[in-house]
Amino acid sequence: MFEERYAERVKNLSPSPIRKMMAIAKELMAQGKIVYELNIGQPDIECIPEFVQAVNRKAQTGQINYSPFTGEKYLRETFARYLNNFFDRRHLRHLVVDTDNVLVTVGASNALNNVFLAICNPGDEVLAIEPFFTPYIGYLGLADGVLKAVSTRAENNFALPSEEEIEKLITPKTKAILLNSPNNPSGKIYSREEIERLARICVRHQLFLISDEVYREMILGDEEAFSVLQLDLGDEEQNEKLKNLMIVIDSASKSFSLCGIRIGFVVARKPMIDKIAMVTAHSVACVSDLAQYGVAGAYDAVLARPDYLYQLRQTYRERLDATMQAIEEYLPHVVAPRPAGAFYLMIKFPEFEDITEFCLYMLEKFNMGGETVAVTPANGFYLDPSRGRNEIRVALVVSPEKMRRSIEIISEALKAFKLHKANQVRPML
Amino acid sequence: MFEERYAERVKNLSPSPIRKMMAIAKELMAQGKIVYELNIGQPDIECIPEFVQAVNRKAQTGQINYSPFTGEKYLRETFARYLNNFFDRRHLRHLVVDTDNVLVTVGASNALNNVFLAICNPGDEVLAIEPFFTPYIGYLGLADGVLKAVSTRAENNFALPSEEEIEKLITPKTKAILLNSPNNPSGKIYSREEIERLARICVRHQLFLISDEVYREMILGDEEAFSVLQLDLGDEEQNEKLKNLMIVIDSASKSFSLCGIRIGFVVARKPMIDKIAMVTAHSVACVSDLAQYGVAGAYDAVLARPDYLYQLRQTYRERLDATMQAIEEYLPHVVAPRPAGAFYLMIKFPEFEDITEFCLYMLEKFNMGGETVAVTPANGFYLDPSRGRNEIRVALVVSPEKMRRSIEIISEALKAFKLHKANQVRPML
Repeated sequence: MFEERYAERVKNLSPSPIRKMMAIAKELMAQGKIVYELNIGQPDIECIPEFVQAVNRKAQTGQINYSPFTGEKYLRETFARYLNNFFDRRHLRHLVVDTDNVLVTVGASNALNNVFLAICNPGDEVLAIEPFFTPYIGYLGLADGVLKAVSTRAENNFALPSEEEIEKLITPKTKAILLNSPNNPSGKIYSREEIERLARICVRHQLFLISDEVYREMILGDEEAFSVLQLDLGDEEQNEKLKNLMIVIDSASKSFSLCGIRIGFVVARKPMIDKIAMVTAHSVACVSDLAQYGVAGAYDAVLARPDYLYQLRQTYRERLDATMQAIEEYLPHVVAPRPAGAFYLMIKFPEFEDITEFCLYMLEKFNMGGETVAVTPANGFYLDPSRGRNEIRVALVVSPEKMRRSIEIISEALKAFKLHKANQVRPML
Repeated sequence: MFEERYAERVKNLSPSPIRKMMAIAKELMAQGKIVYELNIGQPDIECIPEFVQAVNRKAQTGQINYSPFTGEKYLRETFARYLNNFFDRRHLRHLVVDTDNVLVTVGASNALNNVFLAICNPGDEVLAIEPFFTPYIGYLGLADGVLKAVSTRAENNFALPSEEEIEKLITPKTKAILLNSPNNPSGKIYSREEIERLARICVRHQLFLISDEVYREMILGDEEAFSVLQLDLGDEEQNEKLKNLMIVIDSASKSFSLCGIRIGFVVARKPMIDKIAMVTAHSVACVSDLAQYGVAGAYDAVLARPDYLYQLRQTYRERLDATMQAIEEYLPHVVAPRPAGAFYLMIKFPEFEDITEFCLYMLEKFNMGGETVAVTPANGFYLDPSRGRNEIRVALVVSPEKMRRSIEIISEALKAFKLHKANQVRPML
């Protein structure tokens, strides 16, 4: 009855497929079922111990106070040092990031939503490389913006379309291009050449270039991800224009296994940072000072011992290796390209038209010695409803042994599901 | 140059006068000046110790994980118990609040912004009782909504206008009435009769009744605040309709001196909670699980020892008493009605036309033994730019001795300011 009193922008918002699976999994786990939660990018790894120490130190003071809109200066400074250090250690030419270029947010989600609120008028459009992280649609939708897809295909190794093809999608309403590399869900790392292509388009059409780099540290092969902070268009005027349009998104969630602390970052020129900070001021007032002190402890720690993040890469590589080997053994018929970064795997099952029913069956009705697996149907990662229907996304969030076991469970669940479907369609006598 | 690329909704957002003063005060304090920060509602009281213990326990597990959109079940349950207990202990008839009626947010600011995003289409209007907490304009503005003022006056003890006068302000665009009792900045506690008046209007016009009750525990006299959860329109059909429209806002910030933890609440019917949770899902993803565990520890503690919050009232009463006495002594010419709730005081200085210059002078140029006072010019608490120009808001956030000292400093600063102004206007020879 009061439904019509809600705002248009929220009428069609629903939990992402990732979170729908999470809710079901949690309920089954509460009932005693063992579920490998490969549906969500939340690693089983303990958070970095320096975070715990920093949080305890701050809490002990009994002073839990309002923070500046832009975030605690100490964290902004430390994060800027971390970022510069990341490129310096690899001898990569990059834009030097200063404290003033950093805004602290309630996670990368909030960073993106705040950016959209700061740049989109109702009906404005943002181009995102498809497949993309499903909630992008809602982050933008809350700002009354509309997501439009720049389609890429697994068959083509998710390569970006040509400059001309991308430009065809631009209208007077287009405000930004949103890039995510290493990509969730595809694992693709976009090349310097591809990202330069986007940058040139952005400069030409005065579009913001929003680069979600939360998986910067998750490199699964030999190739580092190319950051927009490394861009050089070979022309000072072009570079200068680009600096006004460049917005980098980052987060402490994945690098330190701190998904629940909700600390993210926006990196941009100071006037842009100050503008987005006004969104923070009028949405959450400010970010938790306790969380910021804790996370500053984490970044401080990896500046002192960078091996922490190298070790993390190694951890995810071992998980991926075990998974790829298990797929070869248990699921020889699927298509599963090895990802270059992030910590997800897309698996295509040619026998399905729509894999959602199987995912739900496996989670709710199937078990192997009391265990089962939660995965995310990949359809939600595409804007085009006809795409990704026979694909799933699997997150490398448990040990190699458990990843292997999960693939085995999927393969057994497939057999059981076929029987289950055959039994459903019973011929008349 | 890129200014025109920003969204309309953020073009006019600026820091509130409270926060502008905070920024200047912090800078002066860094330079060694002692500033009594009476400009912001952040008490100098240490947070409740059970919060610290709960945070430490949770951090030690090393598991900092995504939380459900609606918040941790344990905190929602505990907060519902706290709320029911608050009324039960005082033998007040009230709506019983269930876990499903509670949404956890990133502070009351986020609660309000999320509610506005969930109910306001661009151009929709919300009526707020003026004077009001300045950032309300921005919380609503981010949702492309417009605040309209229901004016009240100190001379009339901030009494609500009549039903007819309020109804004159309603247009087809009006979506809600926003109430804040005990009120920031006026300290007014609205009566049962006044709040029933608003409720009847809301039911008649299908408007949401949003009640910001963050100062519920801050009672400075004999009168408890009346909550919308106690409303009874004496007719089941009316009461039923009202339940669909009622939205209560609360926060852990003031009750436990935890301004920096950023935990707030929305209390409403389940369908409304589920809808607003979709805003959480697509803005911050979820609220920090660590912060939620800590705050659950705080609410658990006051359920076991309610004297904590009674003691807190006593603390604020002593601060108020000292302040009122000092005003009588040092500032006999001002108008300063004793507030009934919250922890602010409005002081009117008849000699000023615009008091902002004096506030800045006192903070930046004046000191008394190296000490000065930051206060907030009250003009920003009114939508009408002609109002509140000779008023300040003072927060009772330091000890009685320091409150007394602050009033003394204000009185000395007044004298110095008069001299300073007299010297500025020097007659020609």
